[in-house]
Amino acid sequence: MSKPHDDAVSTQHSPAARGDVRDGKREEYVLTLSCPDKQGIVHAVSSYLFMTGCNIEDSQQFGDRDTGLFFMRVHFSADPGVTVDKLRASFSAVGDSFHMDWQVHPAGERMRVVLMVSRFGHCLNDLLFRSGSGALPVDIAAVVSNHTDFEGLAASYGVPFHHIPVTKGSEESKQEAEARLLRLIEEENVELVVLARYMQVLSDNLCKQLSGRIINIHHSFLPSFKGARPYHQAHARGVKLIGATAHYVTAELDEGPIIEQEVERVGHEATPQQLVAVGRDVECQALARAVKWHSEHRVLLNGHRTVVFA
Amino acid sequence: MSKPHDDAVSTQHSPAARGDVRDGKREEYVLTLSCPDKQGIVHAVSSYLFMTGCNIEDSQQFGDRDTGLFFMRVHFSADPGVTVDKLRASFSAVGDSFHMDWQVHPAGERMRVVLMVSRFGHCLNDLLFRSGSGALPVDIAAVVSNHTDFEGLAASYGVPFHHIPVTKGSEESKQEAEARLLRLIEEENVELVVLARYMQVLSDNLCKQLSGRIINIHHSFLPSFKGARPYHQAHARGVKLIGATAHYVTAELDEGPIIEQEVERVGHEATPQQLVAVGRDVECQALARAVKWHSEHRVLLNGHRTVVFA
Amino acid sequence: MSKPHDDAVSTQHSPAARGDVRDGKREEYVLTLSCPDKQGIVHAVSSYLFMTGCNIEDSQQFGDRDTGLFFMRVHFSADPGVTVDKLRASFSAVGDSFHMDWQVHPAGERMRVVLMVSRFGHCLNDLLFRSGSGALPVDIAAVVSNHTDFEGLAASYGVPFHHIPVTKGSEESKQEAEARLLRLIEEENVELVVLARYMQVLSDNLCKQLSGRIINIHHSFLPSFKGARPYHQAHARGVKLIGATAHYVTAELDEGPIIEQEVERVGHEATPQQLVAVGRDVECQALARAVKWHSEHRVLLNGHRTVVFA
Amino acid sequence: MSKPHDDAVSTQHSPAARGDVRDGKREEYVLTLSCPDKQGIVHAVSSYLFMTGCNIEDSQQFGDRDTGLFFMRVHFSADPGVTVDKLRASFSAVGDSFHMDWQVHPAGERMRVVLMVSRFGHCLNDLLFRSGSGALPVDIAAVVSNHTDFEGLAASYGVPFHHIPVTKGSEESKQEAEARLLRLIEEENVELVVLARYMQVLSDNLCKQLSGRIINIHHSFLPSFKGARPYHQAHARGVKLIGATAHYVTAELDEGPIIEQEVERVGHEATPQQLVAVGRDVECQALARAVKWHSEHRVLLNGHRTVVFA
Repeated sequence: MSKPHDDAVSTQHSPAARGDVRDGKREEYVLTLSCPDKQGIVHAVSSYLFMTGCNIEDSQQFGDRDTGLFFMRVHFSADPGVTVDKLRASFSAVGDSFHMDWQVHPAGERMRVVLMVSRFGHCLNDLLFRSGSGALPVDIAAVVSNHTDFEGLAASYGVPFHHIPVTKGSEESKQEAEARLLRLIEEENVELVVLARYMQVLSDNLCKQLSGRIINIHHSFLPSFKGARPYHQAHARGVKLIGATAHYVTAELDEGPIIEQEVERVGHEATPQQLVAVGRDVECQALARAVKWHSEHRVLLNGHRTVVFA
Repeated sequence: MSKPHDDAVSTQHSPAARGDVRDGKREEYVLTLSCPDKQGIVHAVSSYLFMTGCNIEDSQQFGDRDTGLFFMRVHFSADPGVTVDKLRASFSAVGDSFHMDWQVHPAGERMRVVLMVSRFGHCLNDLLFRSGSGALPVDIAAVVSNHTDFEGLAASYGVPFHHIPVTKGSEESKQEAEARLLRLIEEENVELVVLARYMQVLSDNLCKQLSGRIINIHHSFLPSFKGARPYHQAHARGVKLIGATAHYVTAELDEGPIIEQEVERVGHEATPQQLVAVGRDVECQALARAVKWHSEHRVLLNGHRTVVFA
Repeated sequence: MSKPHDDAVSTQHSPAARGDVRDGKREEYVLTLSCPDKQGIVHAVSSYLFMTGCNIEDSQQFGDRDTGLFFMRVHFSADPGVTVDKLRASFSAVGDSFHMDWQVHPAGERMRVVLMVSRFGHCLNDLLFRSGSGALPVDIAAVVSNHTDFEGLAASYGVPFHHIPVTKGSEESKQEAEARLLRLIEEENVELVVLARYMQVLSDNLCKQLSGRIINIHHSFLPSFKGARPYHQAHARGVKLIGATAHYVTAELDEGPIIEQEVERVGHEATPQQLVAVGRDVECQALARAVKWHSEHRVLLNGHRTVVFA
Repeated sequence: MSKPHDDAVSTQHSPAARGDVRDGKREEYVLTLSCPDKQGIVHAVSSYLFMTGCNIEDSQQFGDRDTGLFFMRVHFSADPGVTVDKLRASFSAVGDSFHMDWQVHPAGERMRVVLMVSRFGHCLNDLLFRSGSGALPVDIAAVVSNHTDFEGLAASYGVPFHHIPVTKGSEESKQEAEARLLRLIEEENVELVVLARYMQVLSDNLCKQLSGRIINIHHSFLPSFKGARPYHQAHARGVKLIGATAHYVTAELDEGPIIEQEVERVGHEATPQQLVAVGRDVECQALARAVKWHSEHRVLLNGHRTVVFA
């Protein structure tokens, strides 16, 4: 499928955002950090940037009085010739002095992701389109599924499809499947795994190995209705709003740090099937925002919660 | 306090809605019913109305395939001289033949309610104003509280205030308090008790006696965060939306049939106190809608759920 | 592309909804009507249904006191052997006596639609997926575009693509294009034309010919920001919410009866491009709902407004 | 009326927020600034704060590429003995060097406001309660009205009431009324005038004199439905969402910079009166947020738009 011509979708203000060096144009980078909160962090970071000739394009910060942690995300432009390696080298002094957990990435760099799906393809379709149209700054390395339903959809976007079946009840089959997934992630330099209505439960081991790198969409407004058939649970409880939750996957099912949630109003006449139908749109919205924010380094972990510099 | 002049708030289209007989004007009534679903109910009801010279102003119905129950609410006008007693007498044949649970009320009749509050008066204030301005078709017979904080607020609306303290840990004190409440309800012909952030837990006995006649506002989006300090629970879980739930009170705390829910978005920077502040508006909204709908006979019980003909 | 196995998406409760006669199963139909409001309409309709052995599955009505019009939508099941032709013949007496504007359709009958698009394919993609997955009860007869960008996308869904270019400034080219469109509509028995971000302005003549059969998505919250570049207009005005409006197309640009609207919150930091990006999701939501409701005969015209029995 | 005991409503984290010097406790301040964007602003401000021993509690900034303006709001704590006068003196060097428009205020300082109302008191009641309960950090110096309907309501909150009537059609009466208002504002050191459904149109002269210091709530979603009877206009257009807009008042009616907007969904069955009723809640919400943000120095003017550091 040819990509639609769509100038409108670039989220970067300047051409330099693409991360290529072009004739002395300024490069743009994103710095994210978290550290114990104390006096002088903003001063140290802004001084560093000022001294290295960088210009702040956008900056957000947050100090959490509960956890005593400080978080910051700075989008800045640098002089031509200032590479990401140089920045990483020169910032480390500041990073060390404040015991920061920090990263620098070229802004506009497209994160490599794998999308996983089982039987329902609405989120998959939504993410494929957003990526293809430039609205989502990710490179979809592959679509992985325990079924073959979406082989054609992936092909229509020129994305490699991997059928990794899982035999119900077979621990061996599950381990084999997870091993295949891990090999794919390694070979394709995948940075993020998106469970786009992928319904197999991942092993504790896999969750730990990919900690902070797996986003799942659970089709309920957590912490309500964890586990199976949440729309049926919601219907039984008679809630007036249903929702979906995009969260990082941890070993505890549906317990991971929440990135984004969305809800939609439903009336008494809605059957569970109709809740499923309404819920699809909500799932797409919540997941798409979460993946976008994560791929733009806007989500930082704050204990069991997230800080989202949207 | 003098009542503001506010023509705009009448929700009844015709003067006859007030339930008085005026010089041959048509009276308006509301019929609500629920029964096992079968063929012919709408036909029987509309035939009854047609034959008795009534005109349907508004009609809503719903058949629940799960429970096999049918629900209907009809707002109709009747010829002068057709009183509510006559209607109740003549409709009983239809009601019996379909084994209906049914009621007829004069439309616009103001339901008599008691508002109960503890320490936080935002919902109380909101309901007092709505009632006073004509936006809420209820007569507030009294404000009851286990504290005296809102005696002045009640007085400013000309509403009797009853301080019914409850000594913590004293079962006897609680029984005494509930007995006083029941006496008040009986003496004042109270039809609805609104727990407007009244924080004492009602006994099973009271819940059963007043079944279907007590509405509570729980400051969370049920079934998430039941019990105490829901905003602190919500903060700990890191949800991105907080909410409130108006529901009928049953013996199981926070488990009763939900009437209305509302949510509001919150960011990572919100402390529990800030969630409390945002939540106040959501609680007011959800509770006000629930009380309005109930007082207009728009809420019907459907097992553990509600049908709301809003 | 193979269709995903998706039991969950059927919005019809019973198998009979597909409109096929199966071994004496009850067929389901949808009756919609509008007429001058007067006493006895509901009685007449419900009597007709009762007498013909039909069972009401769902019924909604509305009497507009301003316009004096009455609207009704009844979803009912009929005895085997009662065909839509028989129903249309037998209901005409009721229809005539109340001067009704009425229609009967088999429930679950898939409406034939043409989707039109220019440069931005998000709505097109969304509708193609919903149709393909069974969430939207329409048969997409063709995709029509003044560009070729989405030829591949249409092909991936097995939908015929028609490139109907329009030369800017050429009245002749426009007339030619509209003639081709009308021929396609006729040949393909198209009942609804969806302008899914199709940006050419249709002639008054075409609007009249297809009156009530063209739905457009305008990328603003009407009546704000009519015409071109509404997101740039919204940005300039500094609104805090942007929206989209799905409406029937009339000769007056962006003035037709509104079917559905949706909004999304935006902050001061959003550039016009970012409003465009956020707006895409809102446009998809509003348009999808409007098309679904229209295809299920849930939208009735009430002067310049719509009645939506959702 | 005795103030309700409500610990929960303080939005200030530390006791020092009240702006009193207490036994060597750190004082808290809010700095707001806007200036032409250039390299080094954040560095200069954070260096200034660091050098003066101040600690940043919360900081937000925004650079608008369209207007080339930079905006910042910093909430910081200072060493005991550092007064607001000292801060204002020492910051001026930074302010001057960047040509800043800047202000420093003690955090938690309650802004002095006048509330103005005509016939509908829902917003007035809402703001009086929020102020009285501590949720809104304002001191209501007076309630002003061209009618007497709300004299009692004001009295119940212990707030002085000024009846300033305006004779329709009399320019002289209007000038007299505005003169009385200006005298009141001066005598009471009023910093903000809130038009809480005050329906008299203010003169250009008054708008200019109080530029940036008058917030109005218009009962529509601007720029839709300016002027009179917006709910009736909305009803006629058949919109599916109605709204309200809180904005700064300028000489052009309903054209001033928007601070906050809110919407609510409405169905086809809603009469104009019902839109008015639904709209009241939306007006209260939008106005309360706008007044809160303004009183906390969170709203900065950006040409015809606002930057809101909520």
